[in-house]
Amino acid sequence: MGMWKVKGVAYKPLVDADFDGRSDQIYISPNVKAPRMAGVLVKIFAWVLELRPLGKLLLYFLKRNNLINKLVTEARLEEPPMYTPQPIHQDLEEQDVESTDPDSSPSERVKEAVNCLPWSTRNERDEQKLGFRHWTILDYSRAYSSGDITPTTVVERFIASVEESNRSDLRMSFFINCDAIDVLKQAKESTLRYKKGEQISVLDGILVAVKDEIDCLPYPTTGGTKWLHKFRQCTRDACCVERLRQCGAILVGKTNMHELGAGTSGINPHYGTTRNPYNRDRISGGSSSGSAAVVAAGLCPVALGVDGGGSVRMPAALCGVVGFKPTFGRIPHSGVLPLNWTMGMVGVLSATIEDAFIVYAAISGQLPSEELITSPPKLSFPKLGSTMGITDIRLAKYGEWFNDCSSDIRLRCSEALLRLCQNYNWKTVEVTIPDIEAMRLAHYLTIGTECSASLSSYLERLDYSELGWDVRVALSIYGAFSGKDYIMAQKMRNRQNHIHQKVFEKADVIVVPTTGVTAYPILADALQTGELEYVKGAALVRYQIAGNFLGLPAVTVPVGHDRDGLPIGIQFIGKPWSEATLLHIAYAMQALYVQECRKPEVYYDLINEN
Amino acid sequence: MGMWKVKGVAYKPLVDADFDGRSDQIYISPNVKAPRMAGVLVKIFAWVLELRPLGKLLLYFLKRNNLINKLVTEARLEEPPMYTPQPIHQDLEEQDVESTDPDSSPSERVKEAVNCLPWSTRNERDEQKLGFRHWTILDYSRAYSSGDITPTTVVERFIASVEESNRSDLRMSFFINCDAIDVLKQAKESTLRYKKGEQISVLDGILVAVKDEIDCLPYPTTGGTKWLHKFRQCTRDACCVERLRQCGAILVGKTNMHELGAGTSGINPHYGTTRNPYNRDRISGGSSSGSAAVVAAGLCPVALGVDGGGSVRMPAALCGVVGFKPTFGRIPHSGVLPLNWTMGMVGVLSATIEDAFIVYAAISGQLPSEELITSPPKLSFPKLGSTMGITDIRLAKYGEWFNDCSSDIRLRCSEALLRLCQNYNWKTVEVTIPDIEAMRLAHYLTIGTECSASLSSYLERLDYSELGWDVRVALSIYGAFSGKDYIMAQKMRNRQNHIHQKVFEKADVIVVPTTGVTAYPILADALQTGELEYVKGAALVRYQIAGNFLGLPAVTVPVGHDRDGLPIGIQFIGKPWSEATLLHIAYAMQALYVQECRKPEVYYDLINEN
Repeated sequence: MGMWKVKGVAYKPLVDADFDGRSDQIYISPNVKAPRMAGVLVKIFAWVLELRPLGKLLLYFLKRNNLINKLVTEARLEEPPMYTPQPIHQDLEEQDVESTDPDSSPSERVKEAVNCLPWSTRNERDEQKLGFRHWTILDYSRAYSSGDITPTTVVERFIASVEESNRSDLRMSFFINCDAIDVLKQAKESTLRYKKGEQISVLDGILVAVKDEIDCLPYPTTGGTKWLHKFRQCTRDACCVERLRQCGAILVGKTNMHELGAGTSGINPHYGTTRNPYNRDRISGGSSSGSAAVVAAGLCPVALGVDGGGSVRMPAALCGVVGFKPTFGRIPHSGVLPLNWTMGMVGVLSATIEDAFIVYAAISGQLPSEELITSPPKLSFPKLGSTMGITDIRLAKYGEWFNDCSSDIRLRCSEALLRLCQNYNWKTVEVTIPDIEAMRLAHYLTIGTECSASLSSYLERLDYSELGWDVRVALSIYGAFSGKDYIMAQKMRNRQNHIHQKVFEKADVIVVPTTGVTAYPILADALQTGELEYVKGAALVRYQIAGNFLGLPAVTVPVGHDRDGLPIGIQFIGKPWSEATLLHIAYAMQALYVQECRKPEVYYDLINEN
Repeated sequence: MGMWKVKGVAYKPLVDADFDGRSDQIYISPNVKAPRMAGVLVKIFAWVLELRPLGKLLLYFLKRNNLINKLVTEARLEEPPMYTPQPIHQDLEEQDVESTDPDSSPSERVKEAVNCLPWSTRNERDEQKLGFRHWTILDYSRAYSSGDITPTTVVERFIASVEESNRSDLRMSFFINCDAIDVLKQAKESTLRYKKGEQISVLDGILVAVKDEIDCLPYPTTGGTKWLHKFRQCTRDACCVERLRQCGAILVGKTNMHELGAGTSGINPHYGTTRNPYNRDRISGGSSSGSAAVVAAGLCPVALGVDGGGSVRMPAALCGVVGFKPTFGRIPHSGVLPLNWTMGMVGVLSATIEDAFIVYAAISGQLPSEELITSPPKLSFPKLGSTMGITDIRLAKYGEWFNDCSSDIRLRCSEALLRLCQNYNWKTVEVTIPDIEAMRLAHYLTIGTECSASLSSYLERLDYSELGWDVRVALSIYGAFSGKDYIMAQKMRNRQNHIHQKVFEKADVIVVPTTGVTAYPILADALQTGELEYVKGAALVRYQIAGNFLGLPAVTVPVGHDRDGLPIGIQFIGKPWSEATLLHIAYAMQALYVQECRKPEVYYDLINEN
């Protein structure tokens, strides 16, 4: 019996705690012991877990000895539960921002955003073109306006490229659905607008891909499954998609994703595994795998993803693009699959910070009917042209956490942070953020339980053979968490909210690598069954959690490559509602790495014919 | 297998729903099939449930065929979860109210409240004294001020009376702790203040009893257990207690309660079963059993309780006194045992509406450090003197629900409602409130799960033999709810919030009986073990749930007796933050039943010596 007895941790009250870098707090690295499983192994495991009540018993014993019990569900902590992110507006003072008109339309906000961009983006591209660069929204917009090219031509090239990417020697599996006729129709309308000089905004004619977790007509919303759309109809565009359409954007299709967002690799047995454009034998990361990969491969300058546990930022980092997840409640959630209620939100993937900013400008602004956050502060935009003048930025670094990654990532991210501080005369502040690993486990418990509840009415009617095997295991585990477990996780959420508030008294942002590992190999046995790879999964999500569990804004920027040429991202996590500052900082970082961009192995140039 | 398969209910979307009295909605009466258990039966049942993992398996099977699955956890409903009550302030317009100064002190607010009282309360007592009447706060205050009696004398009589009530032929078990020396010390200080003419407020020298779930020095806070205070020290007064002390009140001790608030009978095997002053062979109701009984027995004009599922209103109704539970977030929760986080709150028990109002005035007003509700509207007080002039009150009645009680209760409450409308020219509006029973089950699931989480760190260190047997069963059941179950219950909470918002478009208050049954007999086999009596328990809580699950204010007023002479209460459930209107209505009701008060079988007159 002794070996089963796991006593919970007793957490100290936070009153007067000061989380500076000299704390005696012990950093706990994720200690995941589960072996990798794929192929027949994962099938057997899933099948046993589903045997009732035997599976329940097995889960009962599996749970007992787990770190999640010790750190979360059996823990003692005085904080009451906090059930949703509560990003409070604490008299945020941001430098060099422009406040926006709350009543402006999406296209008006896009115009305001463009006015905040530095001149160089518009004119100095060619001079700076020392390294490889993706085409940006303004590149397309200029080319359309000058008549160099039409949206129709770009879309024709896009369609041909998507077809090519599906060839048997590539099998990139970027999209789940892409209706060539619908895309072409939108392109022709946009082309006509340009011909008449009536283009709506710089987003007119811009190709935007949408993760298949977000409603976008004329497509069903599969959530990466073969069945969800049979139960839940997609009857209208999600609010964010509608706003992009109002700006003239061309919605080019639904990108591939990890089934139900229940994994981080992007290995999808139903629609194929999204491959990494920088190395097609590697994963693209997930769950917004397709959205990251299409941007990296040049098929769209921007794509929408959904980030419930790093699902925008992880694939962005692994595919060498920008991933931006605003504050919880900043972007309407209406029309996104309700796989969870307190974690996931729409984010933007793009090749540059400027493009993420433009799309963010178009889609942000809460719907009055959504009561996620009662009173978010007014939206304001960063004047990116003046980023060089931003002073006194303090970047919080928790050394042990920062360094808990592969040596290449550690090296590149440390160097990037150093460069950033030296170039702009900014300061790194050493901090301690206690209980990072407990937060990861509490988040896992929360998102799993919410997923289980959100799907319960469907699962009852579902033929389980339509589910991927890794997802079947995940759903069995998700369903095993008790109500008590869920509430204990919410107590941890409250505690971490207090901790982060204290850290943000010392700094403007927290800086970390985006992931603990770069894109790892796709093994053949995983393609048909999916795989359980909790060790690498934990390394991927290590730095994501505060963005979701606490609703903080966060952005990842590419900062070079590892020894295998795989992209590495650095992440900035901001105070609630501090998107403008976050974009300033990310833009400053990007400027230092523009020349180190490399052309992906799989890349399509839609402006200059391939 | 077939018999296990319970398909969940599919709830219709609420858009455009109109809940008038002609709805085709089917009313589901609680259909509780569990047999009563007490004595050795409950011991065996508890013991089997605690055998791990066998007990888990048994619970798994018990749960499968339960109505809670069909109506809540396997149900399909589109509403996202709402994790806490969200009493929104919707431009409440109340008649004849006085707004208060938000910066006033408790004693200043008491003064404002007294100024809102009608003259008759102060002077016409004797003329009206046709039936029996309890002594009120103003009766005591007048007697102290005139020098007719001193607080010291009253407290001496109180101490003697409490001793007498514990005699073997009575065994009323009103208190868990009552420190005669401490109480006498407070009384002498108050007496001195009156002698010097320096009394603080009308509450100076008033005896107030406190449920043993609320911190009050010099006592431990047992929560009705033999163990909780060993783990959790009481180091200072709860905020509500502190405010009463600031007004000069005498805190006379900690009243008995159902262990952990986990039952509604008030049968407590550790501290004795609180007996009903109207019939000592009957239960007092719970969980604030002692607080209701001491007021009924004349030992204090007012007492504090905590209401998480009717725990103030039920015992108040069963003991023939007033029970008032304000809007969630109106009274500071600081210093109350955290047995749950989203349900329970302090309420007032008293002999009259005027007294409930005075104490409410003293203790209301959220603490800045408590973030339960972000922005409650300003407190305002009802000018009770002008109640007769209040016009156009609309009382919502859901006939099938209203009538789902014993025939005596149905008769008395229907008659009371009729009298009320005729006397004041108010109107009853027939409505339908769908899914009342689903709400009760969702609330049970929620409060059980929160209780389980709140106690988990203690239970690990506890010798289970210190727990009552009925509570052991309850804790086993509470622990069996899954995270999915908990979230599904929160979806139901959101749905019911919308439903009640729609009902409140048609009416100012909802009117129901307070309980479905009157005080039932205490059976001998329950005294040592507690009892499981789910059928009568469901009948008691039938009308309580919206007050807790949705945080609505509610008040119960005595309206006569059943054929056995046991008290009956009628309940008004108000819009969020509409306490002033609620008190107006309850005061009007009380005025019609003043002459029907009966003297309890066990009663102590502390003003005129017994």
